[in-house]
Amino acid sequence: MTKRIIVSILAAVLCTAAFAQRLRYVDAAGLNVIGQPIPTDVPFARLDTSVYKFGDATIDRYADYSTGLAVLFRTDSRTIRARWETSGANSGSNMAAIGQKGLDLYIRKDGEWIFAGVGSPDMDKEPYDRHEGTIVADMAEGMKECLLYLPLFDCVKSLELGIDEDASISPQENPFRHKIIVKGSSITHGAAASRPGMSYAARFGRDNGMYCCNLGFSGKSKLQKEYALMLADIPDADAFIFDAFSNPKAEEIYERFDEFVDIVRKAHPDVPMIFLQTERRETRNFSTQKEAFEAAKQKAAKEKVLARMKEDRHIYFISSEDFLGDGHIATADGTHPTDLGFTYMLESISPKILKILKKYGIR
Amino acid sequence: MTKRIIVSILAAVLCTAAFAQRLRYVDAAGLNVIGQPIPTDVPFARLDTSVYKFGDATIDRYADYSTGLAVLFRTDSRTIRARWETSGANSGSNMAAIGQKGLDLYIRKDGEWIFAGVGSPDMDKEPYDRHEGTIVADMAEGMKECLLYLPLFDCVKSLELGIDEDASISPQENPFRHKIIVKGSSITHGAAASRPGMSYAARFGRDNGMYCCNLGFSGKSKLQKEYALMLADIPDADAFIFDAFSNPKAEEIYERFDEFVDIVRKAHPDVPMIFLQTERRETRNFSTQKEAFEAAKQKAAKEKVLARMKEDRHIYFISSEDFLGDGHIATADGTHPTDLGFTYMLESISPKILKILKKYGIR
Repeated sequence: MTKRIIVSILAAVLCTAAFAQRLRYVDAAGLNVIGQPIPTDVPFARLDTSVYKFGDATIDRYADYSTGLAVLFRTDSRTIRARWETSGANSGSNMAAIGQKGLDLYIRKDGEWIFAGVGSPDMDKEPYDRHEGTIVADMAEGMKECLLYLPLFDCVKSLELGIDEDASISPQENPFRHKIIVKGSSITHGAAASRPGMSYAARFGRDNGMYCCNLGFSGKSKLQKEYALMLADIPDADAFIFDAFSNPKAEEIYERFDEFVDIVRKAHPDVPMIFLQTERRETRNFSTQKEAFEAAKQKAAKEKVLARMKEDRHIYFISSEDFLGDGHIATADGTHPTDLGFTYMLESISPKILKILKKYGIR
Repeated sequence: MTKRIIVSILAAVLCTAAFAQRLRYVDAAGLNVIGQPIPTDVPFARLDTSVYKFGDATIDRYADYSTGLAVLFRTDSRTIRARWETSGANSGSNMAAIGQKGLDLYIRKDGEWIFAGVGSPDMDKEPYDRHEGTIVADMAEGMKECLLYLPLFDCVKSLELGIDEDASISPQENPFRHKIIVKGSSITHGAAASRPGMSYAARFGRDNGMYCCNLGFSGKSKLQKEYALMLADIPDADAFIFDAFSNPKAEEIYERFDEFVDIVRKAHPDVPMIFLQTERRETRNFSTQKEAFEAAKQKAAKEKVLARMKEDRHIYFISSEDFLGDGHIATADGTHPTDLGFTYMLESISPKILKILKKYGIR
């Protein structure tokens, strides 16, 4: 009996030793954080909210989110873990926690960024703020180039990466070319993306090797002057993609479009501005009210962009008929594209955008 | 000034009257609830848990879920609202609340079920149990045939539908043909489906006009004898589709497969049993441990089914190479297909399953 107990204890100790790989943690702020359109010392926010204030509490909160940001690093660790803290912000009912406040890792293999694992937020513990987990383990030996996307719909207050104690980790240079600013609504923000790296802006960037900054502001992207002034400040922008017509009413589009373009254009005289028509929402399928409201928005958008294109040859318009496929199955709630919706959307917009960018030597 | 106040009050009253359409609520249990494989008086559970006990608290809880159930009704109401109560169960971090505890409405138009709207769970109020919302409003006049899917990952304790006070509502006959039992893991359960009607079983049924019952049990589908005994009790099953190899270890597949098939086969001598190979998980991309574990499962699954096919001509095996496409982007977390993953999966399995079913006059 005593012998059996000793054997059990020994087995338990050995098991623990085998599983408890020794790790060390490093602050991800010391690695290469990409995705901020305007350089700032704030490590994990897409905009420096001490500089950019929008006069709207929700917009100010969103500006502080880590949307579109990613950490680039090289490591020969066989395990990658993370400890991170988010703000406790609630998600919408159309979004999973991994997309909202999780982490999404890709590792480069034969030149391609391949999905490696997620950092899954801890939803069972109060106050839903601190998370810890293994993103990937038991990897083969050798150096890996890593791209870790940060939460789409929350702030990151801190982020530490855990690697094998004897492994190295260092910042990886940004391999993405050019600088493309994607400004838009919840669709750009990635409201119903399954993972942080699955927003259409992140996918367009990863698929084409281009550097995209995500300035999607869910429900709040109404061609406000404050956004135009912020966009004017962005250095070295090579192109703008606008999902500008999903949030404003038709009247707001008519009222605000020209001033918005004037401000951006003044700061970026020859930079292509590519306007996406807003998608044909599935909420229109049976609601006569939504049908009329959305059709009016689309009409206003098309009229305003086409008129402006007559006097500005660096403005472009992309129609949205095929953004959601034809099966009525591509949204989480009638409005927000799922990963399937973004796949249809990218199949439509990617070749068109690439063709435009090519004219500017962006390829 | 007084005049202005009176005008304001009048305007407010008129506005309120215009928006406050009078509704009446009916208990959805009195309409046609479909999706229960074995007839029961319990209105919104897929199995009667007083009859079926699995000796595992999680499985018993899942059996009580409304997974795969839908309410069929006809109404000429221009508005459809819902009030419903769920159990407060927590979702995984890979699932949005609409899929977990929401409602998903389709209306038949020219013979096709078209998405109409969602019942979005209320996540901001404690205890996250009671929900109320408009699914669709401002519809054109006329009678509509409606199909309302119930939550994938929770119980429905009560469900009332709100319609215009002067509108009619009545049960709609089940238009789906045959009876196909889909038994499986979280993949079948619909773990990362965006909406209740987006699980692959629901989509296969809706797309092909067939009646599918969802018996996906997340993480708990390990070829247990108790499941086989329950499947043996299902009356009038025309076909079985099994996602049987996602949860068990290779050893469990070797040990349990034959007894499982024996029990089901004894009760359903000539019914086709279609086994899906488990998907190639994206968690294998870099983890050598997961690669070995999953490869062993797939080997065991293939060996066991192929051996059995030699003596049973009503058993079929579908390979899974293309279940997740080739872009490594089709899962929410490396394991669970998103709506995009299910789209790839259905593109692969639907023609193969339909070809098999056709041999049995199931079309």
